[in-house]
Amino acid sequence: MNDRARPRPRPIDGWLFEDYAVGERFVHPIPRTLGEGDAALYIALTGARQPVHCSAPLARALGHRACPLDDLLVFHVAFGKTVADISYNAVANLGYADVRFLASVYAGDTLASESEVIGVKANSSGKSGVVYVRSRAFNQDRTEVLRWIRWVMVASRADVAGRAAKVPALPREVPASQLAVAPALRPLALDPAATGGARCWEDYRPGEVIDHPGGMTVEEADAMTATRLYQNTARVHFDAHGAAATPFGRRLVYGGHVISLCRALSHDGLENAFAIAAIHGGTHAHPTFALDTLRCRHVVLARDELPARRDVGALRLRMLGVKNVALADLPAVAVGEKHPAVVLDLDYSVLIPRRQNA
Amino acid sequence: MNDRARPRPRPIDGWLFEDYAVGERFVHPIPRTLGEGDAALYIALTGARQPVHCSAPLARALGHRACPLDDLLVFHVAFGKTVADISYNAVANLGYADVRFLASVYAGDTLASESEVIGVKANSSGKSGVVYVRSRAFNQDRTEVLRWIRWVMVASRADVAGRAAKVPALPREVPASQLAVAPALRPLALDPAATGGARCWEDYRPGEVIDHPGGMTVEEADAMTATRLYQNTARVHFDAHGAAATPFGRRLVYGGHVISLCRALSHDGLENAFAIAAIHGGTHAHPTFALDTLRCRHVVLARDELPARRDVGALRLRMLGVKNVALADLPAVAVGEKHPAVVLDLDYSVLIPRRQNA
Amino acid sequence: MNDRARPRPRPIDGWLFEDYAVGERFVHPIPRTLGEGDAALYIALTGARQPVHCSAPLARALGHRACPLDDLLVFHVAFGKTVADISYNAVANLGYADVRFLASVYAGDTLASESEVIGVKANSSGKSGVVYVRSRAFNQDRTEVLRWIRWVMVASRADVAGRAAKVPALPREVPASQLAVAPALRPLALDPAATGGARCWEDYRPGEVIDHPGGMTVEEADAMTATRLYQNTARVHFDAHGAAATPFGRRLVYGGHVISLCRALSHDGLENAFAIAAIHGGTHAHPTFALDTLRCRHVVLARDELPARRDVGALRLRMLGVKNVALADLPAVAVGEKHPAVVLDLDYSVLIPRRQNA
Repeated sequence: MNDRARPRPRPIDGWLFEDYAVGERFVHPIPRTLGEGDAALYIALTGARQPVHCSAPLARALGHRACPLDDLLVFHVAFGKTVADISYNAVANLGYADVRFLASVYAGDTLASESEVIGVKANSSGKSGVVYVRSRAFNQDRTEVLRWIRWVMVASRADVAGRAAKVPALPREVPASQLAVAPALRPLALDPAATGGARCWEDYRPGEVIDHPGGMTVEEADAMTATRLYQNTARVHFDAHGAAATPFGRRLVYGGHVISLCRALSHDGLENAFAIAAIHGGTHAHPTFALDTLRCRHVVLARDELPARRDVGALRLRMLGVKNVALADLPAVAVGEKHPAVVLDLDYSVLIPRRQNA
Repeated sequence: MNDRARPRPRPIDGWLFEDYAVGERFVHPIPRTLGEGDAALYIALTGARQPVHCSAPLARALGHRACPLDDLLVFHVAFGKTVADISYNAVANLGYADVRFLASVYAGDTLASESEVIGVKANSSGKSGVVYVRSRAFNQDRTEVLRWIRWVMVASRADVAGRAAKVPALPREVPASQLAVAPALRPLALDPAATGGARCWEDYRPGEVIDHPGGMTVEEADAMTATRLYQNTARVHFDAHGAAATPFGRRLVYGGHVISLCRALSHDGLENAFAIAAIHGGTHAHPTFALDTLRCRHVVLARDELPARRDVGALRLRMLGVKNVALADLPAVAVGEKHPAVVLDLDYSVLIPRRQNA
Repeated sequence: MNDRARPRPRPIDGWLFEDYAVGERFVHPIPRTLGEGDAALYIALTGARQPVHCSAPLARALGHRACPLDDLLVFHVAFGKTVADISYNAVANLGYADVRFLASVYAGDTLASESEVIGVKANSSGKSGVVYVRSRAFNQDRTEVLRWIRWVMVASRADVAGRAAKVPALPREVPASQLAVAPALRPLALDPAATGGARCWEDYRPGEVIDHPGGMTVEEADAMTATRLYQNTARVHFDAHGAAATPFGRRLVYGGHVISLCRALSHDGLENAFAIAAIHGGTHAHPTFALDTLRCRHVVLARDELPARRDVGALRLRMLGVKNVALADLPAVAVGEKHPAVVLDLDYSVLIPRRQNA
């Protein structure tokens, strides 16, 4: 075996808080070639229905060379690669920022992820600290397909109270002017008969609330199968025996699975939102457990024009994932409010065709 | 977004009984390109073993260009597309008729479905009514691959008692003379060493009862994963929280999953029944729930010759799916009888090679 | 249907002990073309992460023409084919010997299995007996890809006490000199940045104990889905209703699924063990049931040089799969000892690159 690129040996039980230094870079192991099988599993595990990811003829009409893989499948796989180095010993996944979907990924493409530590801050307890990382995912041509910032609370080996901290400036949003739309993309080819809805960018107004019909009960097997598909090895998702000794007493559902289920549930009402362009920020407000039933509400935050495009715009949306309540019984939830039923609160932007006669 | 083929906007909560008018046509959204991943999932979720769908060399020997997708996988996906428009608010799925499997579907093909309302009849309660639809599924070349009639009970918005009714004449069978067999198909290439059984068309006699060995316990996760794979969004299958307020108090297993499990269980005893040609009629006699264990009995109803073919015949079969009983304890169940253990009672025809020295 | 190769008709309920005669050969039905979908499912169901099976560029760098399918996926599918003829009425799966992985299998290859009875021995009870079989799996070119011996306890029809017995000599190991390494394979291309670990053959010492981090709780749905994927029809895995009347009172998890989960859990610590070369022997020491949580310990037994290769060696390992205990609480388990927590005890050899500057 050659000696090139030999990484600092990762401890078998993963890194702890004091192992992270600002500026350190990780080339995460286990590149992954994604294929049609992964796409089929993604549909089966989430109920995703966005037709650009389901219909090859429609995808080609839009200018893709084949069905692109679902944005969130790509996110979860790219994210999963970072877990062993970043969040294997995470106590909590605190937040995301500056998540940018930069290029489509197709069956046959191979993803690899890298991360750089951009901040560390010990907690006053001294038992853990927050680690901030900027991660990037590349395809086999080294085209960057995705980038994101996240911060996690990681257990420490020793008392770390009082250690020097660096907290990075976190962008509050990805500016609309920087949302990526491939020049060859023809969003007007999106056929309302194929998507099931005729609403375009112009038809949504800021402040509008969409309570999506349907609910999805999470089964332990489904959540674990999805999380294994992403090769996310965070122990909290898989080990009921070990979890019995934790405060929750049971396995946690991977937060990304919750995002995927909410995206899938929200197809009815957002039929033409054909791609996720960015996630500006988000939190997993409460944990989700097996047998919880999820529902999804969207609030339209803004309509953003995109540079040099009259055929497609961005909708900025707030996705609220709630559990075990009927949406009719859910009041308006203020930004920053921690409603007990809300498990997911995501601020993100989707791409959607614009009306040509507007 | 262009304005062609813009459908009547579907309410986000789906249509109700009074929204259906005889003669109305639906082009169902979300065309779906099926692939090898879907085929693998179908095997994993059902245990299907028909070798024409498992072995590419065998499929080619039979005259296929590749493994055709399982007939029931095609049915479930085509059927799933109709759910949002036809049975999203269905109280019950009442029956099937005239289900014809017209052409093989291969990995890479894209399915789309259309329906026409052929009958409506309000219930005397006024709270719901029966909607009859003829549905058709096409591949990307607009070749019709499947057609079927079904009727469902749909909730109404207002009191609909006394509304004008039209009940269509429902064919009691697909005549054997109309069963589709591709001219290029070479059923004699079906190798008993590959299928595991040597019985041909001539070896089954009308009245024969086959109690298939084995049983399959349904898990909630498996049933939901299969149903999501088919993009069937009927709420009764996914929402435990909402189901708690229904008479059943829990999620229902998609009836099509029951058909698939019975078809898979019946491989032992019907090893050479390599394709489903038609479903003449059928009912889901009782609901199936998670943790029910299914078994399958077949009764041979008839042997039908096929026009211009001496190499292949049709077996007309009655498939009885039962739950939580040993078949040895199940008496003969008369046609039309509602035995409490019977969840599925299907009248259908399969294709099977004929003996050449008979 | 032609009359070639017509097998002795298999009873619908399977063979019993007295049906097996030494020297008899079975050509097992249902050849199976494996594809990318099966590979994706294998990852999703087990959490497997060996990068040779995940990354097409890495696989090609090693000299493969594409990602080879996971060795254990191949094993389970090849093994599954033998179940209907060999272990459908098995009371217990007693052991394996001489399991040899002979050639890589790729997406698109078609597997078929054959077996020969090499021994029979009635139990003194007269109610069952042990059947020894040598099985072999071939691809579509009749290249042998896998061979193995196993012995199972099979129920008898009548009292078989005192019947003539033949117990075959069972090899205690596959000699290192006979381990198959394709001449074109370039193990030195295995990149530590891709696998996540830098340890080579030289870095493991006999006697070393590796307690792998993480645990995996088995769900009934996951175990059944995996077992159906392999088209293994052994009834004990699927039928909760029938199992209620057995001593265990519930379904058993397929032992091969336990092997796969342990192999997946052991990636951290054996990152460069890129292939399984042989399984010398092994037992399923105790049954695994749904909701058991599995963990894996490895003990390094030996380092074996391979003929004419300086770039790759074999590590002989003992894989201990345990349930519902922390590995820190597990004492050393002597060979042959039946510790109550141990469900799997496997003696096998993996291939791993050798250090070039050693």
